[in-house]
Amino acid sequence: MTEFLVQLEEAADRVTVALDALLPRSDGPEAKVLEAMRYAALGPGKRIRPFLAIECGRLVHAEERSLLRCAAALECVHAYSLIHDDLPCMDDDDVRRGRPTVHKEYDEATAVLAGDALLTLAFEILAHPDTHGHSARRCELIARIAAAAGARGMVGGQMIDMAADKSGWDIATITRMQRMKTGALISFAAEVGPILSDCDASVRRSFEGFAHDLGLAFQITDDLLDAEGSSEETGKRTGKDRGQGKATFVGILGVDGAKDQARRLVAQAKDHLDPFGERAETLRQAADYVLTRRA
Amino acid sequence: MTEFLVQLEEAADRVTVALDALLPRSDGPEAKVLEAMRYAALGPGKRIRPFLAIECGRLVHAEERSLLRCAAALECVHAYSLIHDDLPCMDDDDVRRGRPTVHKEYDEATAVLAGDALLTLAFEILAHPDTHGHSARRCELIARIAAAAGARGMVGGQMIDMAADKSGWDIATITRMQRMKTGALISFAAEVGPILSDCDASVRRSFEGFAHDLGLAFQITDDLLDAEGSSEETGKRTGKDRGQGKATFVGILGVDGAKDQARRLVAQAKDHLDPFGERAETLRQAADYVLTRRA
Repeated sequence: MTEFLVQLEEAADRVTVALDALLPRSDGPEAKVLEAMRYAALGPGKRIRPFLAIECGRLVHAEERSLLRCAAALECVHAYSLIHDDLPCMDDDDVRRGRPTVHKEYDEATAVLAGDALLTLAFEILAHPDTHGHSARRCELIARIAAAAGARGMVGGQMIDMAADKSGWDIATITRMQRMKTGALISFAAEVGPILSDCDASVRRSFEGFAHDLGLAFQITDDLLDAEGSSEETGKRTGKDRGQGKATFVGILGVDGAKDQARRLVAQAKDHLDPFGERAETLRQAADYVLTRRA
Repeated sequence: MTEFLVQLEEAADRVTVALDALLPRSDGPEAKVLEAMRYAALGPGKRIRPFLAIECGRLVHAEERSLLRCAAALECVHAYSLIHDDLPCMDDDDVRRGRPTVHKEYDEATAVLAGDALLTLAFEILAHPDTHGHSARRCELIARIAAAAGARGMVGGQMIDMAADKSGWDIATITRMQRMKTGALISFAAEVGPILSDCDASVRRSFEGFAHDLGLAFQITDDLLDAEGSSEETGKRTGKDRGQGKATFVGILGVDGAKDQARRLVAQAKDHLDPFGERAETLRQAADYVLTRRA
């Protein structure tokens, strides 16, 4: 696992360097929103989604430069979603990744605008010829990430999660909400490689299965960290799901049931990697990491 | 002018029909955000930007279906920007186009999410093969609208406009801010046709000049309407610029000076249309309309 953590950190560093180059400099009278964008996107973070995009992409021999640009775009979308989710009118969080959230460090207007601009930048990055020599591939990336992030994906999931009354929620409802809220973007990460390269449909299906199960496992362990972890470990406020009456996997399955379910899903995710043999070892370690992570 | 208004309304209706078909149905547990998107995008509006895109596009023989999809995407971006600009943490407006703003009709969280989803949808529409047979053209549309809407365009302009202290602002500062905040998207509208078709560079430059001057004239008349118009006419709160200490063209040039400047810019905008002869008559009327509009 230590070796894996080194690889994860190394990938995170490379994505941060790429992001730093792609984000506009914070100058001019609009500097404040640019600073806030950089604060949010370049701050500490595991960069799990970029890591998945890069590792899946390597398995299908996608070009490194293309992968890095897609990983950066993915992180822009993820960072935007965190900024907006943290707003007072949404989840109202003051701390994220161990630092003040964007609206606390700056102000609410700047946070709304920084999120908007990061989302917009993601599409600008993907549309640029440097992302892939064939514009049809770039359009496919854009269409897919837009679908994953939009009203029937991430935004829709957050809308469902904001519902006031969740008393009647069962495991199917929570699963659907989480598939949209976090699963869709994780699935996109696994799609990047197949879109960039000319791999066959069965590879794409394997990645889809892997991302689907891993995404759900990731969300369950997120719920577990919120229920069991400390703020010091997770870098954000914990116990808030219970406090806000949020329906969670832990709330319905209990701590032990949720742990069992996460383990089952991770095993299932790894099964999807069988066709790749030893070459997928890093992705298997990523799946195991989801179970053991403390933040 | 009456004939022009009929054309403007007809184009607006066709864009509304296209938007209605492109916006997701408001069903499922995420229905609320979908309803808010439809409320904002399908509500009353002049659809000036879509109109410009369609009319400039017709002059260069772009395909009607392509133009309508681009017009719809443009209106999604415009509608998103209005939703977010109206938020309490931004301009704090309760009324827009004669109806409650989105955060008043729904709530703040829904307004943030509906704006996010409309912005995302714009890119999904543009990336789709129906927008243009050549993916390179679609990528160019996406790259250009992202640049116009992002941190160095519309979002940056709004950030500058949110600055607390504007006492030292001169005409150059306001002009730069308005070029970013509203001019960039209006310029994109005029770029759509040249990107979709194979017209030569001089046509593109003419459109750019036209859009540049018209965009500024449009903003000056916006300031004049805020200073002189009534809420009944404009469908939004007026006099707010003065109330919020906003730096405006009227504040610096005075009412008469601003009117002169708008007239000069509209004449200049029309000069750019000379190469098109009578075929550009509708665009000339659009320029005149900017001077006479009451909302």
